[in-house]
Amino acid sequence: MQFDDVVKERRTVREFLDKPVPERVIEEILSLAGNAPSSMNGQPWHFIVVRNRDTLEKLIGLKNYFCPPEKQEFQADFIRRAPVVIFVCVNREKSFDRGVENAVLATAYILLAACSRGLSGVYMSAYRSNAPEIAQSFRELLEIPADFDPVTLIPLGYPAVEPPAKSTTPLEEMVSHEAFSKK
Amino acid sequence: MQFDDVVKERRTVREFLDKPVPERVIEEILSLAGNAPSSMNGQPWHFIVVRNRDTLEKLIGLKNYFCPPEKQEFQADFIRRAPVVIFVCVNREKSFDRGVENAVLATAYILLAACSRGLSGVYMSAYRSNAPEIAQSFRELLEIPADFDPVTLIPLGYPAVEPPAKSTTPLEEMVSHEAFSKK
Repeated sequence: MQFDDVVKERRTVREFLDKPVPERVIEEILSLAGNAPSSMNGQPWHFIVVRNRDTLEKLIGLKNYFCPPEKQEFQADFIRRAPVVIFVCVNREKSFDRGVENAVLATAYILLAACSRGLSGVYMSAYRSNAPEIAQSFRELLEIPADFDPVTLIPLGYPAVEPPAKSTTPLEEMVSHEAFSKK
Repeated sequence: MQFDDVVKERRTVREFLDKPVPERVIEEILSLAGNAPSSMNGQPWHFIVVRNRDTLEKLIGLKNYFCPPEKQEFQADFIRRAPVVIFVCVNREKSFDRGVENAVLATAYILLAACSRGLSGVYMSAYRSNAPEIAQSFRELLEIPADFDPVTLIPLGYPAVEPPAKSTTPLEEMVSHEAFSKK
């Protein structure tokens, strides 16, 4: 697919077809994600591909348990219909104090690469700085060693719905020149 | 350009041709960045396009002053040769406690979109959590209001060099299945 089309067509979709995602497609997506920029080119990423239904049920329970009040409309139950979830972890030492940034860069690549293969995904967080018990729960669930941190998780699948066109902020509202207040 | 080619060809380049970047190209890139995912679809971004040489000299001074010891080989002087620098800021209220994540998602889009237009950029940070004086310096330099935070800056230009092919971590080293230790 053309780059601009991928960017414009990517949407967050929480309803998936009952259609498996081939391992080959996941490998293509993660291989592309390995091209993301990272601090000092540390490439600190570790991806965990989860398909096991028992693990995903536990994941749903954890996400709902830790769901903040303002995001209650985004319960994690939809993950039950996702054929696969990718966890993005980073090695702390190879992240040079930019673990979150490095993980999010790879996550952006995964979401776009998934779209380029006809898949849709959802960006979800696996940590919150003021609630270390969240990352700790995922650490225990997926046996993540102490020198790695889970940062995001991305349920993926073939979309069952076509979401409405996205309305984006007009350029003139979000762009300034030379200083914040100068259009 | 094809999506996969953009991902594979994007490189961090710090040497730029003495060739201006048309405002129209910057607008295309920032318009694409506005399609990035964001928490609760808050679209909290504000982009500041800086070309003024005096401002960029001050920026170089700030980046070098705050450069941590382990990154001394990445002095900011190269910015002097960049025709344009894009600052990515986020509105704190519209970021739902995920300001860094939202800014980094848009930054990934900007770096890829730049590559799709023949440009190269450099990911740089505009803040450090344990050193609030860094963001404060950029806030003063660019008159960023108190409800927005600067997160990244991206010097952009037409590359003057072709960097060597990037060596990425083999998939089998960075991917597990079902749990961290299971290949």
